[in-house]
Amino acid sequence: MYLEKINSPKDLKEMNIEELKKLADEMRAALLNRLSKTGGHIGPNLGMVEAIIAMHYVFNSPVDKFVFDVSHQSYPHKMLTGRKDAYLYEEHFHDVSGYTNPEESEHDMFNVGHTSTSVSLASGLAKARDLKNDNENIVAVIGDGSLSGGEALEGLDFAGDLNSNFIVVVNDNDMSIAENHGGLYKNLKKLRESNGTHECNLFKAMGLDYIYENEGNNIENLIEVFTKVKDINHPIVVHINTQKGKGFKFAEENKENWHWNFPFDIETGKVSLSFGEDYGSITGEYLLNKMKKDPKVTAVVAGVPTNIGFTSEKRKEAGKQFIDVGIAEEHAVAMISGIAKNGCKPVFATYSSFIQRTYDQISQDLCINNNPATILVNGASIYSMNDVTHLGIFDIPLISNIPNIVYLAPTSKDEYLAMLDWSIEQTQYPVAIRIPSNDVISDNRHVDTDYSNINKYQMDVKGSKVAILALGDFYQLGEEVLREIEKELGFTPTLINPRYITGLDKKMLTELQNNHDMVITLEDGILNGGFGEKIASFYGTTDMKVKNYGFKKEFIDRYEVNEIMEENGITKEQIIKDILSCNL
Amino acid sequence: MYLEKINSPKDLKEMNIEELKKLADEMRAALLNRLSKTGGHIGPNLGMVEAIIAMHYVFNSPVDKFVFDVSHQSYPHKMLTGRKDAYLYEEHFHDVSGYTNPEESEHDMFNVGHTSTSVSLASGLAKARDLKNDNENIVAVIGDGSLSGGEALEGLDFAGDLNSNFIVVVNDNDMSIAENHGGLYKNLKKLRESNGTHECNLFKAMGLDYIYENEGNNIENLIEVFTKVKDINHPIVVHINTQKGKGFKFAEENKENWHWNFPFDIETGKVSLSFGEDYGSITGEYLLNKMKKDPKVTAVVAGVPTNIGFTSEKRKEAGKQFIDVGIAEEHAVAMISGIAKNGCKPVFATYSSFIQRTYDQISQDLCINNNPATILVNGASIYSMNDVTHLGIFDIPLISNIPNIVYLAPTSKDEYLAMLDWSIEQTQYPVAIRIPSNDVISDNRHVDTDYSNINKYQMDVKGSKVAILALGDFYQLGEEVLREIEKELGFTPTLINPRYITGLDKKMLTELQNNHDMVITLEDGILNGGFGEKIASFYGTTDMKVKNYGFKKEFIDRYEVNEIMEENGITKEQIIKDILSCNL
Repeated sequence: MYLEKINSPKDLKEMNIEELKKLADEMRAALLNRLSKTGGHIGPNLGMVEAIIAMHYVFNSPVDKFVFDVSHQSYPHKMLTGRKDAYLYEEHFHDVSGYTNPEESEHDMFNVGHTSTSVSLASGLAKARDLKNDNENIVAVIGDGSLSGGEALEGLDFAGDLNSNFIVVVNDNDMSIAENHGGLYKNLKKLRESNGTHECNLFKAMGLDYIYENEGNNIENLIEVFTKVKDINHPIVVHINTQKGKGFKFAEENKENWHWNFPFDIETGKVSLSFGEDYGSITGEYLLNKMKKDPKVTAVVAGVPTNIGFTSEKRKEAGKQFIDVGIAEEHAVAMISGIAKNGCKPVFATYSSFIQRTYDQISQDLCINNNPATILVNGASIYSMNDVTHLGIFDIPLISNIPNIVYLAPTSKDEYLAMLDWSIEQTQYPVAIRIPSNDVISDNRHVDTDYSNINKYQMDVKGSKVAILALGDFYQLGEEVLREIEKELGFTPTLINPRYITGLDKKMLTELQNNHDMVITLEDGILNGGFGEKIASFYGTTDMKVKNYGFKKEFIDRYEVNEIMEENGITKEQIIKDILSCNL
Repeated sequence: MYLEKINSPKDLKEMNIEELKKLADEMRAALLNRLSKTGGHIGPNLGMVEAIIAMHYVFNSPVDKFVFDVSHQSYPHKMLTGRKDAYLYEEHFHDVSGYTNPEESEHDMFNVGHTSTSVSLASGLAKARDLKNDNENIVAVIGDGSLSGGEALEGLDFAGDLNSNFIVVVNDNDMSIAENHGGLYKNLKKLRESNGTHECNLFKAMGLDYIYENEGNNIENLIEVFTKVKDINHPIVVHINTQKGKGFKFAEENKENWHWNFPFDIETGKVSLSFGEDYGSITGEYLLNKMKKDPKVTAVVAGVPTNIGFTSEKRKEAGKQFIDVGIAEEHAVAMISGIAKNGCKPVFATYSSFIQRTYDQISQDLCINNNPATILVNGASIYSMNDVTHLGIFDIPLISNIPNIVYLAPTSKDEYLAMLDWSIEQTQYPVAIRIPSNDVISDNRHVDTDYSNINKYQMDVKGSKVAILALGDFYQLGEEVLREIEKELGFTPTLINPRYITGLDKKMLTELQNNHDMVITLEDGILNGGFGEKIASFYGTTDMKVKNYGFKKEFIDRYEVNEIMEENGITKEQIIKDILSCNL
């Protein structure tokens, strides 16, 4: 086995083409070995095996520096830079993250998990190189799907003005996560079809030099093209035509489903996990139904259609009422402001981590204009993705401190759908809804149909002494805390579903002072800039004791939820202790 | 006078070409009349007079819908849509804002003040039109300078995939605020030089149709080209070559200085205001000096070089150590992370309002990677720009709730420069510094040289009962409050310069409990998600009273600072009242 002997890229440079081809086969087998057991990004990595072998063969990493966009195609790179064991041996699977990571290896330049960042990050490496009068090669790798992101386009435009070595490898597999959307993909198609000779060329129009390689999975050709551009004295795009999912027939045949997958059986392609009801398909079904009744309703996604259940079948069914803008979250938010302004009812959905792209668009394009569009924030929870680059615990400070927007926190499936329906039909506010991330819970107790009485909290249990404000999907934790207080402290506290993250029910909060000594807030996000701090500030000059529960402001990586809850003191036991220490 | 008779675009449609030309002259005179007295955006408006006349002549606003990018070229549009008096008569100057504003007129679609948004906003209007099966024309106007922004490029890419009427007028005056930067400008140049025939064409590469008009200030030609594209059934770019500052020789000769200017004398071009020391030139001088001593230091701006004093002379002097990325804030933040990673010392500066573009880049590209780059946040204050689209009071919640970054709030010139120097030289943290926006105050009392003792607050006056935490440029207000307490309440309170916005000095805050009953926080920004709320939360379960002073979360427009301070209870008198009502 060749792969077993590769401890650094140097070991590759002695090998001949035939050996490199065998190495590629072994790397694919290792990828499938690991991914079939752990799940992960399958298609993007399978497509880039040859290109990454050729890059390491030609260039001299880490002196020459590679920056991988979104980095879910970086597993072959990890295998060739001292981390092969994490793909060969089950006991080492957890030695590596799913993304590039400088703490793992000097060959990884950045922690990267969001798309469209590689060109900009790499141009910084290039600028520093030039300031220091060094001369290494800087190579950014970016997939075609990521090209539609504003940061990537800004980066390419900037790179087009560089006067020194800068190489952008465009890994074009003619797919984003789902199919591509955007005018530039017509240009990529023309370039592929003309073997790179079409005279109108996006990259040249951005000021970069350009070279095309049609056989993006042919090691020999790739070595030739990389050798040609090595040590070049100006910016150049190396456009390579690769096959997503190459070498694994299921992934070759259904590129969207095998972009990322759960653990699977290599022989049958069957995913072994089975799932109950989830908020994605609940949302998709609701919206599709709504669309059929009202042609003004439109669902908007940015490259992740299935985050709200829009499988390819549902997308077809929705027709022009479904819009995938490609990876372009900023555009999506500005566009829904325009859609709402012109009298329709847009709903844009993405993950909490990706909504981070859109602060300015939410503020300027949407909220200053006060247009009635709806944003669904998915995976906004400690229970959601746990990679450091995909955390869903920062959206409350991000969104809720912007004026005019109403940010709602439903506590159950029923309340979520009622809020969504209200939001679509109302015409007064930009609204965001934080989709719950715990189990899908049906609980009709909380369901109003009208949420236009802004900032009116809902008191579900009227108790005394301690009031629990349990926000969104931490409501069920609030119920547990209530039961624990009854059991351990012998009284019934008040339980409140705040519903509105963006404001205070000052009347209810003031009335609580009559027979409560303490308020507890529970939120599924970081405390800093969040919901609880506003409650603490409200009671600042009173005798009310306030204790906020949520997470510390820190980047956490591949964590266990229970450990994080304990570290942050968010357990029934700790809360009882805290109440006792207040000597109410 | 023709202009006096124009009450709506309809009045224009009766006029012949010669009359329209005379109208253009009158509009230029009216622009200069107003701008010479109020200050404002001069060059962009002077360049677009003919195009906007032609647009209103050909299209049927407000059924046909115009969206102006950044909208500082929209004054001629305002004149033709019922708001001429605001340019003709001094008593009406303040009837209109400096930007498009739907509250002023049904001809204005959006409140717009940030760049690069028009294509995305307009595409939303188009999508809604198509859902409703309407058929009006949708016209987005965008300047060449704004094209480098990610949101604009995302929008163009999306527009290139539209299958219905969509017109993008690219107002190319070959200038951003300063000169353009980016590879795409080489393409625009080639298009201008080839009369639009160059085969490599950025807009076509993005999937849009294309038409060029070289005489962008010729009404007749413009009417012809707009007539040609009216009611078109697909997306098209109308690329017009205009002259920035046209018709006012000073603005024609020095486009950068006359992009925006203070009130001036029309005959001599002299600006009558004179200014003392300002933080822009202080920063520029400091950085230039630093660069000369250290080739690794680099200053980065995104289209607004003079915000840190980099006039064209200083830019030349700095050479390759100065980088203007064009309007591309996202790219700038990612790039400085790369520059720092590769061992250099980048400082990126922009306005508080524009840093809103970069939340995700600060979080993902910079802070997860913990690279030691410096961000200077300018105009972050109630004392800064007072248009609703340019408010500088939201950056504390935006930046300070991101993990890893150290956000510093200097209280004087000396402390600012000491912090800046420390930040450039340290290698542990991403750092942001909130440049003061009150008068330039020299005050050496607060100056440490080393700020690596993170979150160590500075106690300047050790008093009792009440502790004042006075952040950044509200420090001087804190000093006033101290004197007022001494005078009115007869005791000396404690005065603390927190210095660090991003964390709590828990030791000092705990010790305050020994002989203080109340803590007051003062911050020059909105309260929600800000600094004070964290102090309130810290003391939540103690007996300490906490009162936070700052601004309500709201979009305010063209305000008087004193009124806003009073509305928010941030006056010495109100603070004394609040202390008394706490019965300490």
